[in-house]
Amino acid sequence: MTSFPKQVEFHEEGPREGFQMEKATYPLADRLELIDALAATGLKQVQCASFVSPRAVPQMADSPELFARLKKRPGTRYTALWLNDNGFERARACEQVDLDGKIVFYVTEPFSQRNNNCSVAENRERQLRWIDCYIALGIPLEQAYVVTSFGCNLGGPVPVSAITDIVRWLADVCADRRIPFPAFYLADTMGWANPEEIKRRVGAVREIVPQARIGLHLHDTRGLGGANVYAALQMGVELFDSSVAGLGGCPFAEHKTGSAAGNVCTEDMAFMCEELGISTGIDLEKLVEASRLAERIIGRPLNGHLMHSGTLAAMRG
Amino acid sequence: MTSFPKQVEFHEEGPREGFQMEKATYPLADRLELIDALAATGLKQVQCASFVSPRAVPQMADSPELFARLKKRPGTRYTALWLNDNGFERARACEQVDLDGKIVFYVTEPFSQRNNNCSVAENRERQLRWIDCYIALGIPLEQAYVVTSFGCNLGGPVPVSAITDIVRWLADVCADRRIPFPAFYLADTMGWANPEEIKRRVGAVREIVPQARIGLHLHDTRGLGGANVYAALQMGVELFDSSVAGLGGCPFAEHKTGSAAGNVCTEDMAFMCEELGISTGIDLEKLVEASRLAERIIGRPLNGHLMHSGTLAAMRG
Repeated sequence: MTSFPKQVEFHEEGPREGFQMEKATYPLADRLELIDALAATGLKQVQCASFVSPRAVPQMADSPELFARLKKRPGTRYTALWLNDNGFERARACEQVDLDGKIVFYVTEPFSQRNNNCSVAENRERQLRWIDCYIALGIPLEQAYVVTSFGCNLGGPVPVSAITDIVRWLADVCADRRIPFPAFYLADTMGWANPEEIKRRVGAVREIVPQARIGLHLHDTRGLGGANVYAALQMGVELFDSSVAGLGGCPFAEHKTGSAAGNVCTEDMAFMCEELGISTGIDLEKLVEASRLAERIIGRPLNGHLMHSGTLAAMRG
Repeated sequence: MTSFPKQVEFHEEGPREGFQMEKATYPLADRLELIDALAATGLKQVQCASFVSPRAVPQMADSPELFARLKKRPGTRYTALWLNDNGFERARACEQVDLDGKIVFYVTEPFSQRNNNCSVAENRERQLRWIDCYIALGIPLEQAYVVTSFGCNLGGPVPVSAITDIVRWLADVCADRRIPFPAFYLADTMGWANPEEIKRRVGAVREIVPQARIGLHLHDTRGLGGANVYAALQMGVELFDSSVAGLGGCPFAEHKTGSAAGNVCTEDMAFMCEELGISTGIDLEKLVEASRLAERIIGRPLNGHLMHSGTLAAMRG
């Protein structure tokens, strides 16, 4: 009935997603301490910062300095987010950024227009140019995301075919260029997913590219984050984006946009995996400590659960 | 692969569990308003208050007055909690309490000693006396709970056999007395459950009493509440205790006892059911309004998700 993966990899987004969402800016030293605490848990990838307009996102204005001051631990990749050529060039200029070739697809016109100022089809062509850019620079194409894969507040329900169309198109593109098909991420950007839709959509992708790694980027907007991860595990999904302490959620009053709830919580989901016998490579006790550090830095109670209750290790004796 | 129930029944515990956990006491009028708002959503059972020592739990000292002032809606049962003869007599003295015959089993000695001041075996004999008391009074035996069904902070892991022993014993007791076997509830009192253990233990109970209704009383102590409910739904479980807005959780600093996290959140779990096509009989929009009322009464942000993001109905157009 279940076909759990043997091991699961969590890509930590807290340091970028968490602090970017906050109104305040936080001292570089605090953010560096959190990043190091996260890397020390065994997390294989930590997204540390974004290279976006400092005017629009002042919290991330010091990303170059942050990367310059990182003391990197072996076994962890320290990644960054960029959204356009300018951001990419700024990220490339930082020696310590681990560049992960990433492309992002849209499936509804209004959200593509709002975020990209272009149509879904035009954005797809732009991703083609990113692919060729990565190839030219020798950067492997690692991740393809489909945002609002389960539904969109602006564009409504998203048919499965909107996703499978992209999968087929991208499979052709990769075959043409003789590059491997990247890990394919379904992003539940606005919290529309439910466990059965997770299974349906993961299954539909896998039918077309059975060998591809599939990932999920889930937000806990409507309280189904954990159930969605469990459903994905039942489908053998082995890649999850997540945030320590559930970082990324806005303070409560601002939740009503429906698009700003935090990612699923890294330590809660890693705890679930370990309880299910699925290896994460993460030291859970250290991760709980890191989540408590995040709470001390942010200065208000965060949404994680395990951080407030502790693991079961001590109680099992 | 899945065998969802056609419909699911949530037993609301927020008005009792939520306010009992808070340090403050709240005006009777506010609690009555919340209870009425909950009943108006279509919830079939709302646990309104407890009849326990007013010295130990001053928040519930006015339970008789609360029940006296209830304006009951047809279709909803207004229940109460009691823990001993004295509490039961006080509950019986309130005309408007819908008495539900309930028994509670323990599976670890230290927790039974702490809560009952007697052994697990002695507590089982006490439950036998409750059963006979209910029979004598013509009150149907409706619910049998096993607390710390998945593990106990004081007593450690709980073997499946500790539960199945109780099931077999109770089946004999009911057969002897020619009364129906009650709904059998596994309570994850301290947040040890994970989805696979839900399936294993529900399956073990069902093997012995295939016709019995099975219920779950889950706390979201470690962030697995939603995944645990989903796993239970996959097993066809149709009865859940829950709290509006996740009420019952202590303010954060006190979570570290590991036993005081809130119940799973009624509206988040009802939303999941409805998204999965499982009928709940609940008007979700009204329930979201009730959860926001609870937040206004308590006066701080509560743990529910849907209450802050809203349902998808409006966005689906």
